[in-house]
Amino acid sequence: MLTLLMETKNTNMISSDELNLESVRKSLIRQEDTIVLSLIERAKFPFNFPTYDYDPSSSSSSCVLSGSLVHFIVKETEILHAKVGRYTSPEEHPFFPDELPPPLTPPHNYPQVLHPAAACININDTIWKMYFDELLPLFAAEGDDGNYGSTAECDLKCLQALSRRIHYGKFVAEVKFRDAPEDYGPAIRAQDRDALMKLLTFESVEEMVKGRVAKKAMIFGQEVSLDDKEEDIKYKVNPAIVSRLYGEWVMPLTKLVQVEYLLRRLS
Amino acid sequence: MLTLLMETKNTNMISSDELNLESVRKSLIRQEDTIVLSLIERAKFPFNFPTYDYDPSSSSSSCVLSGSLVHFIVKETEILHAKVGRYTSPEEHPFFPDELPPPLTPPHNYPQVLHPAAACININDTIWKMYFDELLPLFAAEGDDGNYGSTAECDLKCLQALSRRIHYGKFVAEVKFRDAPEDYGPAIRAQDRDALMKLLTFESVEEMVKGRVAKKAMIFGQEVSLDDKEEDIKYKVNPAIVSRLYGEWVMPLTKLVQVEYLLRRLS
Repeated sequence: MLTLLMETKNTNMISSDELNLESVRKSLIRQEDTIVLSLIERAKFPFNFPTYDYDPSSSSSSCVLSGSLVHFIVKETEILHAKVGRYTSPEEHPFFPDELPPPLTPPHNYPQVLHPAAACININDTIWKMYFDELLPLFAAEGDDGNYGSTAECDLKCLQALSRRIHYGKFVAEVKFRDAPEDYGPAIRAQDRDALMKLLTFESVEEMVKGRVAKKAMIFGQEVSLDDKEEDIKYKVNPAIVSRLYGEWVMPLTKLVQVEYLLRRLS
Repeated sequence: MLTLLMETKNTNMISSDELNLESVRKSLIRQEDTIVLSLIERAKFPFNFPTYDYDPSSSSSSCVLSGSLVHFIVKETEILHAKVGRYTSPEEHPFFPDELPPPLTPPHNYPQVLHPAAACININDTIWKMYFDELLPLFAAEGDDGNYGSTAECDLKCLQALSRRIHYGKFVAEVKFRDAPEDYGPAIRAQDRDALMKLLTFESVEEMVKGRVAKKAMIFGQEVSLDDKEEDIKYKVNPAIVSRLYGEWVMPLTKLVQVEYLLRRLS
């Protein structure tokens, strides 16, 4: 076995000093690209039901996975990623946090930006249900093409991108709190969820984000050919669905993370 | 343990009857998108040298991986994917084929389209070297941001997309051979590599492909904002590099696979 030389001093994680609305905004915008691109890659395949199904009564002995194929792929990939320290980053959250192995790599020196209580907030169960029960049926074409492993891989990428984006609410909340502790303090001390949610909601900003992600879906999801006939543009993922994903799930769930974080911010 | 119900009858793999230049062309074009998108995702991160480096003399005991981080991630992911049958597909080729475990899932009934000798052609060693020694330094910005695990994950996606595209040359060669066995037969019987390479080269088509992938890099790699100022467009990956990737490596290596396949086609 060879020993890996691993630098730990540098990281593009935002340090406590650099944390501001602009740096957080830039990260959120870049993450939109990743989410839209991962949905486009998933849309290459039809729904592929057997990726999600299992039959506990089947007597076939040729396939023994604990749960569905997607469950197996996500869980086993998280075990592998845990070995290289993925979940020591405050930006990453596993879907199956139990029984993850410790990292084989030396610890990263992530800047301590968030309140320590951030570590106990993980809403991936909700994200998992939202993705498979609500979002996926909206944009995956009906059908079965047999590519179950590749389908599960694409689902994993979508789940990881959505989880990272939604849990980034911790950083959003921290920067908002630092900018105006006098606004948030009373609602936090009163543990008033509704008041916090109101303070965190800016409808015009949300409309702008929905417009921007729809535009990204149009641009990234178009069929590109060298002759510029624009008549019949077909998008790989319907831009209205990406807009709805943000309006109905990504932004509300990010605000849920923000509220959960702020409720603990003065503990 | 629950048993996975897995349909094996359907697959979007091209069956022997459906194999034609149009179906192969469509797959190659769709794979261009995946390659361009995976390069764009990799370009989020700077070069991140420690992802690729290891120091066999280091006495640090806190990190013990066999080889570099990227080697570890690719190898371990291939082991996981082998368990769900990825490498039973004639379109997939592992970078570390030794010691892969057998699938836990039931066998897929992939249509038998290629000559059986196809199975022994795997040029991933060449693709690995090309990617890390030539391509990556061209498009990854200098620097180190500490995201080594995510960087290795992105490299894996790029490698998989390039490997799939280049080895698709087997299908390209099969369809060309079936369309004109009288053209290829003499060169195959003479085992004449140069004559085969000449038969497989269409410069005007290659120029068109280079133009199209550059256009994809422009469209998919642009910064999207809601205000349409076009002054200072910055692309996430230089379109000229994507064009060069195809001209210098993807298309020549695909033709190498085609030649290797055709040399065995009449065995």
